[in-house]
Amino acid sequence: MRARSTSVTRRTFLGAATTSLTGVAALSAAGPDLAAGLDQATQAVKGRLRMIATEEAFTTPALAEAYKALVRSTPSTNLDVAFMKGIFDSPEPGSMRDEFRRRLLDPEERLRIMDESGVDMHLLSLTIPGVQMFDSDTANEFATSANDALADLVRRHPNRFAGLACFAPQSPKRTVREMERAIHELKLHGFIVNSHTNNEYLDDPKFWPIFEAAESLDRAIYLHPRSPSDGMAEPFRNYAMFGSIWGYAIEAGTHALRLILNGVFDRFPRLKIVLGHMGEAIPYWLWRLDFMHARRTKEGMTKKLQLTPSEYFRRNFAITTSGVESHDVLEYVVKVVGVDNVMWAIDYPYQPTAPAVAFMKSAPLSEPDKSKVSFQNAERIFHIA
Amino acid sequence: MRARSTSVTRRTFLGAATTSLTGVAALSAAGPDLAAGLDQATQAVKGRLRMIATEEAFTTPALAEAYKALVRSTPSTNLDVAFMKGIFDSPEPGSMRDEFRRRLLDPEERLRIMDESGVDMHLLSLTIPGVQMFDSDTANEFATSANDALADLVRRHPNRFAGLACFAPQSPKRTVREMERAIHELKLHGFIVNSHTNNEYLDDPKFWPIFEAAESLDRAIYLHPRSPSDGMAEPFRNYAMFGSIWGYAIEAGTHALRLILNGVFDRFPRLKIVLGHMGEAIPYWLWRLDFMHARRTKEGMTKKLQLTPSEYFRRNFAITTSGVESHDVLEYVVKVVGVDNVMWAIDYPYQPTAPAVAFMKSAPLSEPDKSKVSFQNAERIFHIA
Repeated sequence: MRARSTSVTRRTFLGAATTSLTGVAALSAAGPDLAAGLDQATQAVKGRLRMIATEEAFTTPALAEAYKALVRSTPSTNLDVAFMKGIFDSPEPGSMRDEFRRRLLDPEERLRIMDESGVDMHLLSLTIPGVQMFDSDTANEFATSANDALADLVRRHPNRFAGLACFAPQSPKRTVREMERAIHELKLHGFIVNSHTNNEYLDDPKFWPIFEAAESLDRAIYLHPRSPSDGMAEPFRNYAMFGSIWGYAIEAGTHALRLILNGVFDRFPRLKIVLGHMGEAIPYWLWRLDFMHARRTKEGMTKKLQLTPSEYFRRNFAITTSGVESHDVLEYVVKVVGVDNVMWAIDYPYQPTAPAVAFMKSAPLSEPDKSKVSFQNAERIFHIA
Repeated sequence: MRARSTSVTRRTFLGAATTSLTGVAALSAAGPDLAAGLDQATQAVKGRLRMIATEEAFTTPALAEAYKALVRSTPSTNLDVAFMKGIFDSPEPGSMRDEFRRRLLDPEERLRIMDESGVDMHLLSLTIPGVQMFDSDTANEFATSANDALADLVRRHPNRFAGLACFAPQSPKRTVREMERAIHELKLHGFIVNSHTNNEYLDDPKFWPIFEAAESLDRAIYLHPRSPSDGMAEPFRNYAMFGSIWGYAIEAGTHALRLILNGVFDRFPRLKIVLGHMGEAIPYWLWRLDFMHARRTKEGMTKKLQLTPSEYFRRNFAITTSGVESHDVLEYVVKVVGVDNVMWAIDYPYQPTAPAVAFMKSAPLSEPDKSKVSFQNAERIFHIA
């Protein structure tokens, strides 16, 4: 009798909690304090593994409009345009790309989907290509306004959203100021960059003020993919290979390796770079990278570095699980890069939420390791309360 | 007393066997029968895990000279030239590249090194870029003479060498005839191709007579890397990234995926492609390849195929361990592509033999699985007696 009573009480209580959960979105206009209080209450009621998803895309209405114009004025040989066109230039109503567009823009639908699957927090970042395809002035203006919009969302839902500030590598000096503003004033949690900018990579020392700022602010930079730069685009033009099926990984992995090989992490030993998609395959290659780099250094073919590539990878990189929901890969990366360097991600709205949650919940990890991947590493690396 | 006596006898016997082993090379001129008999006796005496190394490079004196001329007449913007120049155009005496050159050409030194480390057999293949950088007629002539030279080596040491025939994709028709000759007359064990030919990939149906021949001859094609094709060369020009440290894998992995995505394995369901370097990272991406391919097929972005990419990979590919001596990667690939699809390789002369042997011998596999990777899969896939 007592058992039944407890059960009923719990069910009623959970029912109320669920109502509150869906209510969070609707109440967002009611002011940050109320929303924050509700967020925390919800969290406490749920009493289970906290889930912080770390590669979750959004955009702003102004940027969505600007992308549409950009698509129309950019030669179709540009590989990013195919992606952007499908989403931002009149997507077919009801299509997958139309849904992507809506979900990038709509925080209420996002919160609802998070609630349905028990996701506590999205670490939000501006979707590709961020502001990196605009001219320098436009890029800086959009970086500022997008970061403001992001900070506003985070302020309204401090326990549901955290945010990575975007920046315009086109202007390293202005970027440094925006990075400082994003952390000190906007209280955002790190940075995101979408691989190359006008076909240039951040191993070029002209961009290093950006790394200096990130290191000095003690905030990680998420090195997110975009389509392969023009100089390697050709073989990716067929079979739509430029995108998430293959080209993104080649682009971002190549970028990350360039940073290592040019000694970025000797100059900025406390810099943290985050790679999505299980590290863009770099964890698969650590043995070969070390072997070949040692030989090449000995032969004078490449710059001498203080550490081996795998040592930099374990010290200066973290990876997320976005878009690779394979327990075999997860077990492998936990073994080779260390459980402290792996974070869960969904890649909303491009990957469905429920399977990504199931992947994390059923991960073949010990409970402490599961907590690290599910939320503790994100809390530490992105300074999330 | 009896134990001691046995021990002494065994030691003496093994001493004699070792003498025979080193003697094999010297006796190679004495005729195939004697050498073969000695090979077999040596094998029997050793009485341990057979070791067949499956990605072992050689060249011929005529090709070495031709590469030197080719290097001198090819623009230095070609990424393969940097590799070839170091080895074939007056390498510094005593340098690593000078050693590569000598070992590519010298079967006696090869046999001595094999004996020292207990390697039973090299599956030989013409080193990159094979005949693929010559004009069509020259390429075909060199393919014929290189295959003749290879067959001669194999005939002289049938238990120490097997061979993969090269061919000239420049002329698919002549290639088909050479492929038939290589199997039926020369009794070679399969084929090797060094990724792109004049920046073209084998997913182009004009090359498919080559796949038709391989399937009908029931012999695998080893899809070996070379430097990235011109259309993706740019980001690999810095830090010598075009070669074995990164670019090779991108080139060969991209090539393999193109074959899958254009339906080569629907047309040739029994075709077997072998990838080196632990599958050029494709095994790392199987989950994402399947997910994205399914979505893209549904969205009409790519050709509809009969199977998923991972199903093709497990059915139509095998991989070797060349240049990736990581037990973590080995355990991972055995799990995801199946132990029947993994073969041991050294990558002689580019990788040192002793560590590759130690990697195989100490592999964290059951004894039956170790036998599969060490020699049984190679026997089956390459029809080695």
